[in-house]
Amino acid sequence: MKIRVGIMGANGYMGGEALRVLLDHPNVDLAWLTSRTPGPVSDHHPNLFGCGLHTIAAEDITPCDVALLALPTEASLTASQQLLDIGTRVIDLGAAFRLRERAHWERVYNMPHTHWHLAQEAVYGITELHGNDVAEQRLVANPGCFASAAILALAPLMQHLPIDTRHIAITGISGTAGAGAEPSAVTHHPAMADNIVAYNVVDHRHSYEMEQELSLLAGAPVNVHFTPTYAPLIRGILCISHVFATAPVSRPQLLKLFRDFYQATPFVKIHDAPAEPNAAWQYRPYPQVKAVAGTNYCHLGLDVDERRQRIVVFSVLDSLGKGGAQVGVENMNLMFGLERGAGLLRFGRHPG
Amino acid sequence: MKIRVGIMGANGYMGGEALRVLLDHPNVDLAWLTSRTPGPVSDHHPNLFGCGLHTIAAEDITPCDVALLALPTEASLTASQQLLDIGTRVIDLGAAFRLRERAHWERVYNMPHTHWHLAQEAVYGITELHGNDVAEQRLVANPGCFASAAILALAPLMQHLPIDTRHIAITGISGTAGAGAEPSAVTHHPAMADNIVAYNVVDHRHSYEMEQELSLLAGAPVNVHFTPTYAPLIRGILCISHVFATAPVSRPQLLKLFRDFYQATPFVKIHDAPAEPNAAWQYRPYPQVKAVAGTNYCHLGLDVDERRQRIVVFSVLDSLGKGGAQVGVENMNLMFGLERGAGLLRFGRHPG
Amino acid sequence: MKIRVGIMGANGYMGGEALRVLLDHPNVDLAWLTSRTPGPVSDHHPNLFGCGLHTIAAEDITPCDVALLALPTEASLTASQQLLDIGTRVIDLGAAFRLRERAHWERVYNMPHTHWHLAQEAVYGITELHGNDVAEQRLVANPGCFASAAILALAPLMQHLPIDTRHIAITGISGTAGAGAEPSAVTHHPAMADNIVAYNVVDHRHSYEMEQELSLLAGAPVNVHFTPTYAPLIRGILCISHVFATAPVSRPQLLKLFRDFYQATPFVKIHDAPAEPNAAWQYRPYPQVKAVAGTNYCHLGLDVDERRQRIVVFSVLDSLGKGGAQVGVENMNLMFGLERGAGLLRFGRHPG
Amino acid sequence: MKIRVGIMGANGYMGGEALRVLLDHPNVDLAWLTSRTPGPVSDHHPNLFGCGLHTIAAEDITPCDVALLALPTEASLTASQQLLDIGTRVIDLGAAFRLRERAHWERVYNMPHTHWHLAQEAVYGITELHGNDVAEQRLVANPGCFASAAILALAPLMQHLPIDTRHIAITGISGTAGAGAEPSAVTHHPAMADNIVAYNVVDHRHSYEMEQELSLLAGAPVNVHFTPTYAPLIRGILCISHVFATAPVSRPQLLKLFRDFYQATPFVKIHDAPAEPNAAWQYRPYPQVKAVAGTNYCHLGLDVDERRQRIVVFSVLDSLGKGGAQVGVENMNLMFGLERGAGLLRFGRHPG
Repeated sequence: MKIRVGIMGANGYMGGEALRVLLDHPNVDLAWLTSRTPGPVSDHHPNLFGCGLHTIAAEDITPCDVALLALPTEASLTASQQLLDIGTRVIDLGAAFRLRERAHWERVYNMPHTHWHLAQEAVYGITELHGNDVAEQRLVANPGCFASAAILALAPLMQHLPIDTRHIAITGISGTAGAGAEPSAVTHHPAMADNIVAYNVVDHRHSYEMEQELSLLAGAPVNVHFTPTYAPLIRGILCISHVFATAPVSRPQLLKLFRDFYQATPFVKIHDAPAEPNAAWQYRPYPQVKAVAGTNYCHLGLDVDERRQRIVVFSVLDSLGKGGAQVGVENMNLMFGLERGAGLLRFGRHPG
Repeated sequence: MKIRVGIMGANGYMGGEALRVLLDHPNVDLAWLTSRTPGPVSDHHPNLFGCGLHTIAAEDITPCDVALLALPTEASLTASQQLLDIGTRVIDLGAAFRLRERAHWERVYNMPHTHWHLAQEAVYGITELHGNDVAEQRLVANPGCFASAAILALAPLMQHLPIDTRHIAITGISGTAGAGAEPSAVTHHPAMADNIVAYNVVDHRHSYEMEQELSLLAGAPVNVHFTPTYAPLIRGILCISHVFATAPVSRPQLLKLFRDFYQATPFVKIHDAPAEPNAAWQYRPYPQVKAVAGTNYCHLGLDVDERRQRIVVFSVLDSLGKGGAQVGVENMNLMFGLERGAGLLRFGRHPG
Repeated sequence: MKIRVGIMGANGYMGGEALRVLLDHPNVDLAWLTSRTPGPVSDHHPNLFGCGLHTIAAEDITPCDVALLALPTEASLTASQQLLDIGTRVIDLGAAFRLRERAHWERVYNMPHTHWHLAQEAVYGITELHGNDVAEQRLVANPGCFASAAILALAPLMQHLPIDTRHIAITGISGTAGAGAEPSAVTHHPAMADNIVAYNVVDHRHSYEMEQELSLLAGAPVNVHFTPTYAPLIRGILCISHVFATAPVSRPQLLKLFRDFYQATPFVKIHDAPAEPNAAWQYRPYPQVKAVAGTNYCHLGLDVDERRQRIVVFSVLDSLGKGGAQVGVENMNLMFGLERGAGLLRFGRHPG
Repeated sequence: MKIRVGIMGANGYMGGEALRVLLDHPNVDLAWLTSRTPGPVSDHHPNLFGCGLHTIAAEDITPCDVALLALPTEASLTASQQLLDIGTRVIDLGAAFRLRERAHWERVYNMPHTHWHLAQEAVYGITELHGNDVAEQRLVANPGCFASAAILALAPLMQHLPIDTRHIAITGISGTAGAGAEPSAVTHHPAMADNIVAYNVVDHRHSYEMEQELSLLAGAPVNVHFTPTYAPLIRGILCISHVFATAPVSRPQLLKLFRDFYQATPFVKIHDAPAEPNAAWQYRPYPQVKAVAGTNYCHLGLDVDERRQRIVVFSVLDSLGKGGAQVGVENMNLMFGLERGAGLLRFGRHPG
């Protein structure tokens, strides 16, 4: 079975990643690619040099089975409506439909939401939580990259655990691909190399996705205290989540919880080797960002400071992969009854 | 006035940084440099190519005014005693004398402390807190790099503030110079580049320095929940400290507190520009790691999430500079009544 | 059709890359993996976390269709003999059988060649030149990474062109993956980051492969003057080849020559867009190293300084990909009559 | 003695480096700093956070002893005239007055030269060649960064040596600081990291400076074949110069030549340790880019491939240091009879 897929915004990093993965997907025929400046895609994606593909203008698209949208938020709102109106299902890789609270959305995105009925219809596409709901849908809101990393890290802790759900401190460290393809003062190589830059440290938009999903799981209000930074990597993000236990917990107990929680999912993997207290530090079993770069995998690891009752969870994923375009393809697979891992079950590179 | 200074362990990164700074110090004559493999220092420090200096064996040293020790912990213990016995004052850049609780020290360094009387005598050399005590001393315990960054970030909050002192979550991000000059699997370039690696995430040794100093200031037990990582930078560390307020606080209020706390010190600088909520994110006033690389400066910045009552403090310094050899020189200046900033008041480079 | 393939030396970077590609090859069943320290491969290749594969000791291998060898030179000599003796064909990813001149080999590898009859039998596996000879073979000598880049860059110029074949100056710039998985002083992150390091600048071993193949094509002695460096990238190499024309040539003329030369090959691509003299410099059509990282592609580009009669050719490839394990798989495909691009026709990532 | 110095264009990387060095120069009082957007310099140079300095508009400057110009070429032409007219001497850090051939200049800079009488008056400020002429001057043309590296590498070979002066092949590798402070598609971090990018490979502007100076020294026309690239470093450039000998030469013979040539100069240093043919490759004595980052030093090293009669010379310097603002300060020292090394004799950092 083949489905016909279009990509809107194929010249950016997110659209280019969707394209790269779909080119190698056994059940996909590309319908079209759009961009603001129609032309050869390899002008924007040197990796695709020689592929022969071109983008077209958005107004030239035709109906197809599904479209992946890698567009600015405002453009997603209208394009989604237009696509749905012509019978094309939509996976929005952007932020247009991620929040359930309209007031939150309008405040943090600083604009009125012109298509709230679509937001109400959309499924929030964390496949490990809502994968079963996706098949029914014609509109999926693909989650934010940091939100994916934090939610996957914390979801197993939200039920039955003695933790302080109002004081979860999360540090996010992102590669610069997360800033998009547009040059800026912060991502200028001489400025960014050998540097770490904090940004949006108060009230980051992804915080609201995290709190929304974790509160649902916990059945009670959850507060995340999230601080993102850019680091001189290209792809991938690491979330370090500090959770305060209110009663003793142990690493083995938590590892079992995590393994059980994710046992049925192919893309979340738990680093559960024993953490020998006296092992050379380089062999402690924590995940590394670049092990998942270019892939749809999320690796989790954790530890417990029993002396201070702190749980620390590490989650790594690629903001263009499991935190972006590739999980969009996973959602597409689920929407169309394809094998969930179709086109996605490839390992990353090593080294780098 | 000139003082005669020796450096033990001059071939490592810490000893080399001490040497680089002392070469340009107006009140210093170098007495000697030691290393395990006596020879030209430029074999180990290519920046010093052409300087003509050589290291000697430790057994060939002679008395001088003061020695900076960049040695393994165990070697520091015995060398400090020997130096003091011949009338040479000691600034230990390592961890031998940093903790006031013997039980903590012996557990986290995993060895008996053979010279506890020296630990009892030593001043903990955070100059902003204990600078006045240093002049009297013959032995200074230079603080750990992460400890310096966290203590400087949190000290102003420890008094009179409505915060939860038992749940301070700190993420530390360090450049690889912090791992020392010895090659290892983790710091192998193909493995480390484009990566972030967590290590020692439970019960890190520097946690005990942080808790010791912050508890003193708070007059009550403080718990830090500290998670360190290596990032693909060379020099410098960033600590992100999450503090939970128990009553409303505001950014302007905290900035005033910080400015007042550090008003008399030349090396701690506060990023206190207004943080316009709608400013382009790149202009939010947070410090950048590389602005202080190669210097004795610590830059601090902070923000408040009033919605969630979180304070986040950013502190950056160079683990070989204000977190290492350069603050060692600052301590030396204080010990000998020199101008506090002698040889240290230089700005860093930009870009990089 | 499926063939059974073994990998000797699967824990190193080269063996790991062979493994990664073969895991996704439609015609391959893995027979076995060997290493000096048998155990889970993910201990050495974090990208393969969760794959469940283990290495075995070399003495435990069994016959299979073909083995890829990622071994030290000396080990390759004896292992190749043993494998051939049990009817297993061999693709040596190392240097054991690359040179036709025994004296050259023994001098530059600084040891006696104990199996010269095998060197005489082996085909030198630059597929664009010798692909047709590979099908017959039971032993292929996979070319060196820099040799591949330089030979592919220069081969089209070797016939009928008015150039000085004795004075070809080549600068090689390699990522640090080319140095292998073993930590060293040069590849220590703090030393290598933000640096460029020249090495083996006289009489580099790969020079002999270049001269051997180019002389064959030219029908006359060719001298390359080759200088390699390490740069702070992970994967991929760039060769910049300066060729002095002895009569006027033009860029369009050369581009046609290159296109014709490589028209039948899927993995060498020519950057042949017009080079507008006044175009913004970032749009000049030269290949970029990282466009081919992780792939079996080689991108070529060139320019002509007509004022000074210099031709400059740029060639990029991945030392583990088209310069290593992946071209090894391409040779395997040719040896077994599989589709030449089986398992290899995937594009690289962007960005990074 | 103190001189009063102004900097035009203080917000860019070159002007900021001049400022950083002059702030620490014992004989300098800053007269003024200009920029297109007057305001705090630390908005552009985070290293100078806390320095309290501001830029003013160019029209508000007043006469002073000398001005360093870090301006676009066209702006330099008119500003130089205006400054000289008010009795302020000029060191142009840009390209306005570097060439002796007006036709070359107008072609490669693609504009008419409106002040050729100034170009005729200016001294080309390679201090090792023309330092003695600078004292007399009121206008110095500071050399280009790549030109400095190549000229210092090749100058000693230009006299009495059996070399082919028409076929010198030079590869230039530059950090991204050389691209300036303005963000662009090429220097966007996700694009530049882990990459090497060639640019301006034909007829680079600095080629003409190299040929001009080397021809003067050789007393015969010299042709350089120069190919520049950007690599993912911040500061510093490496030039690899391939020179073809027409008769046998040896490394010791050349090292002596280089040592003699530069014996009277404090800032050029020769790596002349014996190059043991069988030494571990990391100990071959070639200079490293980052050993000179942030300094006014140029390190040279070389080797000879006696088998192929190739000489290869390595030269490293910082494009903002010895290839830019710092050599501008060295020229200033010479112009005013100050100690040549005043404010400049500091070593770089290690590591990084």
